[in-house]
Amino acid sequence: MTAPQDNPQPKLGIIAGGGALPARLASAAQTAGRAVFVIKLDGHADDPALDEYPNVSTRLGAAAKILDAMRANECRDVVLAGKVARPSFSAIRPDWRAAKLFMKVGMKALGDDGLLRLVGEELEREGFRLVGAHDILTDLAVSEGVLGAIAPDDQAISDARRGLSVARILGQADVGQGCVVQQGLVLALEAIEGTDEMVRRSAKYRREGVGGVLVKASKPQQDKRLDLPAIGLTTIEEAHLAGLRGIALLAGGTMIIDRAAVIARADALGIFVLGLGDEDGETNHGV
Amino acid sequence: MTAPQDNPQPKLGIIAGGGALPARLASAAQTAGRAVFVIKLDGHADDPALDEYPNVSTRLGAAAKILDAMRANECRDVVLAGKVARPSFSAIRPDWRAAKLFMKVGMKALGDDGLLRLVGEELEREGFRLVGAHDILTDLAVSEGVLGAIAPDDQAISDARRGLSVARILGQADVGQGCVVQQGLVLALEAIEGTDEMVRRSAKYRREGVGGVLVKASKPQQDKRLDLPAIGLTTIEEAHLAGLRGIALLAGGTMIIDRAAVIARADALGIFVLGLGDEDGETNHGV
Repeated sequence: MTAPQDNPQPKLGIIAGGGALPARLASAAQTAGRAVFVIKLDGHADDPALDEYPNVSTRLGAAAKILDAMRANECRDVVLAGKVARPSFSAIRPDWRAAKLFMKVGMKALGDDGLLRLVGEELEREGFRLVGAHDILTDLAVSEGVLGAIAPDDQAISDARRGLSVARILGQADVGQGCVVQQGLVLALEAIEGTDEMVRRSAKYRREGVGGVLVKASKPQQDKRLDLPAIGLTTIEEAHLAGLRGIALLAGGTMIIDRAAVIARADALGIFVLGLGDEDGETNHGV
Repeated sequence: MTAPQDNPQPKLGIIAGGGALPARLASAAQTAGRAVFVIKLDGHADDPALDEYPNVSTRLGAAAKILDAMRANECRDVVLAGKVARPSFSAIRPDWRAAKLFMKVGMKALGDDGLLRLVGEELEREGFRLVGAHDILTDLAVSEGVLGAIAPDDQAISDARRGLSVARILGQADVGQGCVVQQGLVLALEAIEGTDEMVRRSAKYRREGVGGVLVKASKPQQDKRLDLPAIGLTTIEEAHLAGLRGIALLAGGTMIIDRAAVIARADALGIFVLGLGDEDGETNHGV
């Protein structure tokens, strides 16, 4: 359906994990008159909408196949999007190309988001241009301030700031990206279980009747073109079920997928969504 | 049963939370010829052995009662020991004395181990001498090196170091004291759920057949006379059930309760117990 243009943007390769984001990107790129080619990662990409676009399926470890497919389809730009549950080494089943890469960086590459960073660097070395999901879907990025109709009170703002500090400190260690804070107390920290499960767990430790805030932030050293922490409708529902009062997101370092629907649902459930600046965290931890 | 001595040590007040440690301290102090008086915290102190010693029960928030009881029983030294699940403000039910303290420091005092630090400081202001559990039971302290018969392999040592760094960074933010690491990947981070539940959770994210290490450390700014992170027999059993290969502990910053039994059980289950020096953590997190 793409109309020819005078100065068409280069074709976009989408390396797709789970959730709705990859297909949203494909749709937005096509609407903007840009051709796309989707690489569906086996066991991760789960959105049937992806099949509306030219695509191929491959396992994560088939590096040579991914690179070949992108070249054969003349992708110059590439975006990595969607959830990729951290795989075990055996589940990756690296081909010779991927194995070479692992040998170079060691097993540490498998730690947390090291794997993603590695894939991004390797794509650039291979001559592709890595772009961020928020470069294509500009309303993904979180801005500062109260994003919906519900405003946080002073306690919630204080919890949000404490959570931002904790999440950023965690990020320095290349671990997790989220936490739940209630009245200054950190109820749960996110490692690899994912945000939804952490939020569910926090409900068990929440004090009766006094809120709690989910905080998400990117890691200080995170390449913003790679998979930024994201929230979506599910996050709002889980926060509601856990009795939380709101969600605080690092502005410029997190994404909201399906923003209008997310904010509308948060408003309906009485949950605030707050964008925090990087300087909004606590500065002193008594160290 | 205490025999009179030429130079008796001052009576020891034991403010007792849950678990076996408080009664062990009482027993060790009495064996050393020292009189003890136990303050059992309602809802926390759960060891029936405590009733063998002169004692009184009180809720945590009854600060005036605790201070009066210690004075009336002529305690000069005081040790805080045992698990105190972080209480809600309403569960503390502060008396006027405790409320005054909270007003002074604000709700932040309820965050993480701030409450404990506060209690320790206040006891010293009131003229008591705060002593550490490891000052009384000297075999509680963890020393460096392999503590049992099982030695960690290179991967386990690397995981232990990564975990120590992560735990210490967490500690800077006054959160948690433990994590589980497998092949460089942090499977779980401890917030307020406690070590046992964190270890159980980590089993869900552990890769098939390749170990994992539980790491415990004190916070860098932690007053070593206050409740240091501790492991006991339960920790060994939980680590075994979760399929972990071993436990790494910050030397001088953690305790082993019932050391001989703990090491014997770890040996029997093939689990290593390793004391790590403070400098053994990773130094670079790529920040």
